[in-house]
Amino acid sequence: MPVEKLYTFDRSEALLERARHVVPGGIYGHQSPQLLSPGSYPNFFARGEGCRIWDVDGNEYIDFMCSYGPIVLGHRHPKVEKAARAQLEQLDCPNMPSERWVDLAELLVSITPWASWAVFGKNGSDATSWSVAVARARTGRNKVIMAEGAYHGSHPWCTPNPTGTTEGERMDVVTFEYNNSEDLRRVANEHRGQVAAIILCPFRHDVFHNQEMPAPGFHDGVRSLCDREGIVLILDDVRAGFRLHMGGSGEVLGLQPDLTCYSKAVGNGYAISTVLGREELRETAQQVYFTGSFFTAAASMAAAIATINALRDEDGIKKMEVAGTRFREGLDQQARSLGLRITQSGPPAIPFLTFDNDQAFERSRLWAGECARRGVFLAPFHNWFLCAAHGEADIDEALVATEGAFKVVKDKFGG
Amino acid sequence: MPVEKLYTFDRSEALLERARHVVPGGIYGHQSPQLLSPGSYPNFFARGEGCRIWDVDGNEYIDFMCSYGPIVLGHRHPKVEKAARAQLEQLDCPNMPSERWVDLAELLVSITPWASWAVFGKNGSDATSWSVAVARARTGRNKVIMAEGAYHGSHPWCTPNPTGTTEGERMDVVTFEYNNSEDLRRVANEHRGQVAAIILCPFRHDVFHNQEMPAPGFHDGVRSLCDREGIVLILDDVRAGFRLHMGGSGEVLGLQPDLTCYSKAVGNGYAISTVLGREELRETAQQVYFTGSFFTAAASMAAAIATINALRDEDGIKKMEVAGTRFREGLDQQARSLGLRITQSGPPAIPFLTFDNDQAFERSRLWAGECARRGVFLAPFHNWFLCAAHGEADIDEALVATEGAFKVVKDKFGG
Repeated sequence: MPVEKLYTFDRSEALLERARHVVPGGIYGHQSPQLLSPGSYPNFFARGEGCRIWDVDGNEYIDFMCSYGPIVLGHRHPKVEKAARAQLEQLDCPNMPSERWVDLAELLVSITPWASWAVFGKNGSDATSWSVAVARARTGRNKVIMAEGAYHGSHPWCTPNPTGTTEGERMDVVTFEYNNSEDLRRVANEHRGQVAAIILCPFRHDVFHNQEMPAPGFHDGVRSLCDREGIVLILDDVRAGFRLHMGGSGEVLGLQPDLTCYSKAVGNGYAISTVLGREELRETAQQVYFTGSFFTAAASMAAAIATINALRDEDGIKKMEVAGTRFREGLDQQARSLGLRITQSGPPAIPFLTFDNDQAFERSRLWAGECARRGVFLAPFHNWFLCAAHGEADIDEALVATEGAFKVVKDKFGG
Repeated sequence: MPVEKLYTFDRSEALLERARHVVPGGIYGHQSPQLLSPGSYPNFFARGEGCRIWDVDGNEYIDFMCSYGPIVLGHRHPKVEKAARAQLEQLDCPNMPSERWVDLAELLVSITPWASWAVFGKNGSDATSWSVAVARARTGRNKVIMAEGAYHGSHPWCTPNPTGTTEGERMDVVTFEYNNSEDLRRVANEHRGQVAAIILCPFRHDVFHNQEMPAPGFHDGVRSLCDREGIVLILDDVRAGFRLHMGGSGEVLGLQPDLTCYSKAVGNGYAISTVLGREELRETAQQVYFTGSFFTAAASMAAAIATINALRDEDGIKKMEVAGTRFREGLDQQARSLGLRITQSGPPAIPFLTFDNDQAFERSRLWAGECARRGVFLAPFHNWFLCAAHGEADIDEALVATEGAFKVVKDKFGG
């Protein structure tokens, strides 16, 4: 029986040491190495192709984070790269938009049953923050209701870490317990006549937490409440968008928003975000300032058009569901046969796994780090992402690594 | 004598009509066609090369807006494109950064005398807003002082159009009159002990306004005030950065900041922004959340490295100064010989021209539109930008167009 050969990360560690001199913390934000299992993970990547990535030490991984969402077709999808390159060979960042601006807006509107317009930014936070401003301008009210613990971006009103923000920036945001319709009604009542928007992810995908699908009737209740009280309903589909449905995750989860925010997957890694809106909000949208130096950059729009077309042509959403289901079933079987108690949550294309009785995420960190050392990249604290390039053979190969990692957890923590 | 053949914009107009159906206003933000001279300008661009751009009707322009700043070497600079493409052929948007993350931070720190670290975002607003948060976290204070009318981005605390923002988001921002040291001291005194930051552009470059260089002693006074009161001094070099000095515009204008924000020119059109900081702020910087899906995207970093190296190797800043001076002198001579009273302002690399007695910018709009119809793209409301690809012959060719445009202004408005 061959001895497992585990990855080492010498070059990654040396680079992180260099980085620490010139970047506070070396690497920050959701990619901070501290969120993973230091020593068991690479810190820097060098190459990507399909569902495979290679770190700076030359280690190869099957990628189940897909860059925390953006890579939905696989790294360097030929059609997307070709479209982006063709655009780059003409013009990317112009004085006025390129024709792709119109093409992409038309395409997005055409695949989104209820939307009649689109705007474009760069970051997911650009999209969510602007949507909130549109709701405020439309209603003349200030309050925004969001679920406790939900992530809607890194801007002051919603950042999970308020260090450096002011009370004034956060005072108009109020929270309710996700999936608790009664609590939502309570909060809405408390601020009756003052609520501009309710902003929701299509399902609960908070970090360090099992994912939670919307309870039966929850989304209908939100829509009714918004209609009754004149509240704008914003779907934050930044993380989940284009993995559950081409017309927005609300289509499969029974949520009818007034505004939908996308970013991440829409350009298969090219930096772009977009907000789609209902006709009734068009005029208000025109009045709320939205701009940035690269908002009209054409290559990211060419990439987005190619991404959407390829996802449709390849039946990408179905592929992710199939691969994600195969992965989930394999993990479940492995854990059961080892007597490890785990919980898997979320849709198959956006899965997550936690260990039961693992509040400090010690088992998760160990397992995810052992997966990384065996060539499977996934995070212990954050949901994972399938892409359309994950095939049966990739999943089966990944399951060899996850089994080895489960055994290490079993050895250390028992059942 | 040949008859001037003026450009027409049929395809641009048709595309704008299509855009209006699927984007509120068709085109928004600083590129809104309403800010130019509707009917005399193209709305969409198709190609760029050096200092030349071509619109969707095939009209060719000498570009004096450089995409409102980003294009500092010229469109599609071969070394930048080569570097970006080489990176795109390996990996762009990764789970963890690429090696370019470290290379670029090291390069920026090495060319900036006082800085010891860098962070990266996508938009200029990402950079200015995060800098303000760092100042607040560092000082435990909330107030931010900025110059009345200055532009520091499109986020709620600083957007020039407050529609959709709340009082809470703006209540901690106070303003003073630019270049008025006494007024600045008054405002600082009024909020003594509460001021986290003073944020300044390197010179005044507000839209619809003559540019204004810092008055003698103004910058020294700001620095002393910050030192005395423990205030963080933020240089917003988003618009001017890499056109006056490789180490930041403060180097030539006598401003010693604690944090400097760059975006626009740093990647020659590739979407990236960065904040450089002093050693004393490193620890605080590590505590203030900063993240986005594309913040570690590697192609924009490869582009930035190539841009900085090419600017240095080509002596780009000198070239822009020379070309800008030639343009300014030519414009001055033309206006004088026609008896038109104009004011030119700002550094030669970031010039602007207004007509005297033209409060409603009617002469400016007419002139800029007539320039556009003759193949020179510049804006009537916003400062212009030179790039390192503007040569003598380009300037002289542009001056033929500007003279024709001046004559139209003279015919319509007199002297």
